[in-house]
Amino acid sequence: MIYFDNAATGGFKPNSVFRSATTTLKYLLCNPNRSAHRLSIKSAEMVFNTRKIVSNFFNNGALDRVIFTKNCTESLNTAFFSLLKKGDHVITTTFEHNSTLRPLFYLKNNGVITLDIVSNGGGFYENIVKKVNKNTRLITVNQVSNVTGEENKDIYKIGKFCRENNILFSVDGAQSAGHIRIDMQKLNIDILSIPTHKGMLGISGGVLILSDRVNPSPFILGGTGTESFNLEQPLSLPERLESGTLNLPLIVSFFDSVSFVDKNLEKISAKLELLTESLITKLNSFERVKVYSKKNKSGIVAFSVSPFSSMEVSEYLDKNYDIAVRSGYHCAPLMHKELKTTKDGLVRVSFAYENSIKEVDTLILALKNLLTS
Amino acid sequence: MIYFDNAATGGFKPNSVFRSATTTLKYLLCNPNRSAHRLSIKSAEMVFNTRKIVSNFFNNGALDRVIFTKNCTESLNTAFFSLLKKGDHVITTTFEHNSTLRPLFYLKNNGVITLDIVSNGGGFYENIVKKVNKNTRLITVNQVSNVTGEENKDIYKIGKFCRENNILFSVDGAQSAGHIRIDMQKLNIDILSIPTHKGMLGISGGVLILSDRVNPSPFILGGTGTESFNLEQPLSLPERLESGTLNLPLIVSFFDSVSFVDKNLEKISAKLELLTESLITKLNSFERVKVYSKKNKSGIVAFSVSPFSSMEVSEYLDKNYDIAVRSGYHCAPLMHKELKTTKDGLVRVSFAYENSIKEVDTLILALKNLLTS
Repeated sequence: MIYFDNAATGGFKPNSVFRSATTTLKYLLCNPNRSAHRLSIKSAEMVFNTRKIVSNFFNNGALDRVIFTKNCTESLNTAFFSLLKKGDHVITTTFEHNSTLRPLFYLKNNGVITLDIVSNGGGFYENIVKKVNKNTRLITVNQVSNVTGEENKDIYKIGKFCRENNILFSVDGAQSAGHIRIDMQKLNIDILSIPTHKGMLGISGGVLILSDRVNPSPFILGGTGTESFNLEQPLSLPERLESGTLNLPLIVSFFDSVSFVDKNLEKISAKLELLTESLITKLNSFERVKVYSKKNKSGIVAFSVSPFSSMEVSEYLDKNYDIAVRSGYHCAPLMHKELKTTKDGLVRVSFAYENSIKEVDTLILALKNLLTS
Repeated sequence: MIYFDNAATGGFKPNSVFRSATTTLKYLLCNPNRSAHRLSIKSAEMVFNTRKIVSNFFNNGALDRVIFTKNCTESLNTAFFSLLKKGDHVITTTFEHNSTLRPLFYLKNNGVITLDIVSNGGGFYENIVKKVNKNTRLITVNQVSNVTGEENKDIYKIGKFCRENNILFSVDGAQSAGHIRIDMQKLNIDILSIPTHKGMLGISGGVLILSDRVNPSPFILGGTGTESFNLEQPLSLPERLESGTLNLPLIVSFFDSVSFVDKNLEKISAKLELLTESLITKLNSFERVKVYSKKNKSGIVAFSVSPFSSMEVSEYLDKNYDIAVRSGYHCAPLMHKELKTTKDGLVRVSFAYENSIKEVDTLILALKNLLTS
């Protein structure tokens, strides 16, 4: 099969990640940081090593502020629910995924926050600055649209503005982590939410990475293996935000994911630029295809094929060519409204490094046949 | 090594579970229920199959009310935060783990709920009934103490009482699932929280299983692959409580865990009764050892060795005999207060089916040497 759905879950893992995950599943069946025996101590060391490499890679400047979660959605929810208080004003963008929009609308609808959502028309930075008021406590932006692969190029300017105005800055790295280098200190990012299983090439999970400016309340509370007699959640991090058994196979193998991505990131994003450029050029030769993406490092190309719905296209590709793409709305309603694609959705191709120009050509051939069938 | 820490994380997995998890990690790298291609559809079917076997095994009577979480702690938090409203009264017990106590104390300290905690002295059922008032909305109990392995034998009576009085009944199955058959309909359980990686012999994770009497608000909100244009969390279950990428290797392999446990549960708990009885009898022959457990199906035996702290004992066993036990307080502060073991903690041995009488005898030999050293 040709797997072009890497923005949903990465279809290719480095061997080192697979080996490390399966070895942990087989030989490291224990709870890190809970017991005094050597298996538990060894696994706690491995968790520490992963925290360290994640902290270094994203340069958050605080080793204890790397929080392991089940997915990027939990990371975003943890940040919003543990930081936002009654009366806070939040600004976000039309690039956002429902993992940002739904928790923020929930907080808004329950009278906790006020919310402004700005579009990219005229520039994100300018539109955000216009909306700031004295209660603005958080600005949260998606670095790369999961629909089109378009990058929010204002991250640096927004971060600088936030720091100067004492506003917390949160970035959704769902489609950028592993494709674009993210230096949290340089970009003044306070909250970075990432999945482990997309561009970071790890197994299913997430990470929430915080700067030392952030002082979150607990979100999920429970056993931490520390301060057992404290009926309140410990104040220390990562314990404050990490309760219950950690997902050891994920965390241990994520060390290998980060190592691999750190070594290969530029090579990977260059290849993704090549593949997106190749596909876009070839798609543009079809009169009835409309492309919604530009060449990008995250490997995403969205398009429509008139008169078919995106679902019809993806089913045709799957059935006749065993090509896996994602159709529909990609959990990003405001982006589709802005693109005026709410009726038929878009076909989204999302590449990994392992995809090839030959596979792109098979897709082009398939579309040619669809259009002449 | 001799692994006696199975109540923290099960040290033995059925081959079928390991195979299924690693095959998923290698060949099923995709997002279930998000795309129209066959890999996504296939994986969605596998998730459905696991929901079905879980629903059947625990007999909750509602297939859509099996919610996959990252651990039992998230299951408990999801239940508490999504169900409890301002003014609700909650009753729980001294058997509870911090995964219950800390979220409930948080809700209490933030003025949301009032809380009563009852001990086993005179019987849980009697003590609970005494505390019920007109605002009592939830009674939540741990079925088996993770410190001593003692079973709360009043589950049936408490469940019946809850149903008759329109009170929600929540059970923490952290140490009972996989060891004691739990029939949610028969026991009138509305909320069952379980880990996947302890008695259920799966990989790291959790499940929250609800009856159809429960109407939870969302807890973690985000993409569900459904109703993309709805900025509110969908009302349908499991989507209402399941946002973001599901942990596919966990869910797919949990089918094999449940199959295995369903076939072997009685054999497993008989073996655990044998092992706990054997260890307790032998421990009782030491004058300076005090045992805090009775024969039980969850495979847990807690004891102290005078004049050593539990930490000293576990370090001695690890260093000299490569025996892994858990010392300290097991995140169960009220249980240790009741047992008057808050100074030195307890040594906890927790068995799996694969452990043997020979290993018990090695532990006894080790303790003999510690006591005469």
